[in-house]
Amino acid sequence: MSDSSSAKRAIVLLSGGLDSATSLAIALDAGFECHCISFDYGQRHITEIRYAQALASKMRVTHRTVVIDIGQFGGSALTDSSIDVPEDFDASGIPVTYVPARNTVFLSYALGYAEVLEAHDIFIGVNAVDYSGYPDCRPEFIAAFETMANLATRIGVEGHPVKIHTPLIDLKKSAIIEAGLKLGVDYAETVSCYQLNTKGEACGRCDSCRIRHAGFIDAGADDPTLYI
Amino acid sequence: MSDSSSAKRAIVLLSGGLDSATSLAIALDAGFECHCISFDYGQRHITEIRYAQALASKMRVTHRTVVIDIGQFGGSALTDSSIDVPEDFDASGIPVTYVPARNTVFLSYALGYAEVLEAHDIFIGVNAVDYSGYPDCRPEFIAAFETMANLATRIGVEGHPVKIHTPLIDLKKSAIIEAGLKLGVDYAETVSCYQLNTKGEACGRCDSCRIRHAGFIDAGADDPTLYI
Repeated sequence: MSDSSSAKRAIVLLSGGLDSATSLAIALDAGFECHCISFDYGQRHITEIRYAQALASKMRVTHRTVVIDIGQFGGSALTDSSIDVPEDFDASGIPVTYVPARNTVFLSYALGYAEVLEAHDIFIGVNAVDYSGYPDCRPEFIAAFETMANLATRIGVEGHPVKIHTPLIDLKKSAIIEAGLKLGVDYAETVSCYQLNTKGEACGRCDSCRIRHAGFIDAGADDPTLYI
Repeated sequence: MSDSSSAKRAIVLLSGGLDSATSLAIALDAGFECHCISFDYGQRHITEIRYAQALASKMRVTHRTVVIDIGQFGGSALTDSSIDVPEDFDASGIPVTYVPARNTVFLSYALGYAEVLEAHDIFIGVNAVDYSGYPDCRPEFIAAFETMANLATRIGVEGHPVKIHTPLIDLKKSAIIEAGLKLGVDYAETVSCYQLNTKGEACGRCDSCRIRHAGFIDAGADDPTLYI
């Protein structure tokens, strides 16, 4: 089914954040022809999609934005404005910023797109070290998704298995930043804050800001983020 | 996490077709409080969504339509008007009407919705007997999706596993029709044709029409479908 021209195509999930920008740089460095997708899922700000578009353009890779309807279900502080984003770290269980089945939905679209492009590689920048405790960032989830994907699809059934690449999964945030800096990622062009304001300034208080900022400190690198 | 009022909630995938209508009737008969979802995925006609809405209304269950962006990827005769729907049966492999990763995307949304409603049961009317050879209708796919779902989600991780119910998976089309007729399903209110015309008439020639019509004959029941 595949030929030499499509053998190295990859689908890269690109959110506009630090992790997925690094994941894209790693995929490109490994020689893949990258096709990026971002998701507009009713998140609190869609600035991150503009960051993703700009990044893809700069990296000279194709980019699509897929509008998805998770928001209508509610149930997360990231998609439901009636739930506040917490500003203090809470170590107890899965936080309210968890979006139900988000990575499952994202990877499902990536799988469909991979099948159409006859790509057999999908990159996702999940991380199970410095993360927020989401169940769908764990290696056991990714492994189960890959197994399912190869039973779900024409490419899997016809003997060209799909691989879900998670190059960041075992890295501390500081190691992700170090890897990206070596590959030339400009982190000023990425955004992590859950509640960026209209001027593009990060809150500096949400989980995502805290983890990002601590990563730059641990890596001994300047944090280029614009904070309030 | 769940309480007695939510213990019997189920998400039911409802396409407007014969199979999912029967699956809904079976879920209701088993005592579930059913919450239906249909998907507008750029299929050739969206009459089936109107059938689904009408059916849900008649059965007094909630219904949501989720718009999804599979169509922009192309790659299927059902979502890409440049690919013809074949009118003769072709037994060789996966047909062009296969939509890449369709059931994976559908079940992923159902999983997110289940999580928000604290439902632990999802019904899908897939069938692996009289079907079109799609990989994502097979029992091994469903089992792998269920395993993945319980690693992906809060409800899975917190010890309330999700079950994917496939009450039709081992049934011949005639047995599905017999089961539905016993439960009072009016199949005149369902639609199966891949290329229904604007008058609501089925082509009688596509795979889906052929399988449906043969099912009524085998069941010894009148086929209420309006054909061209």
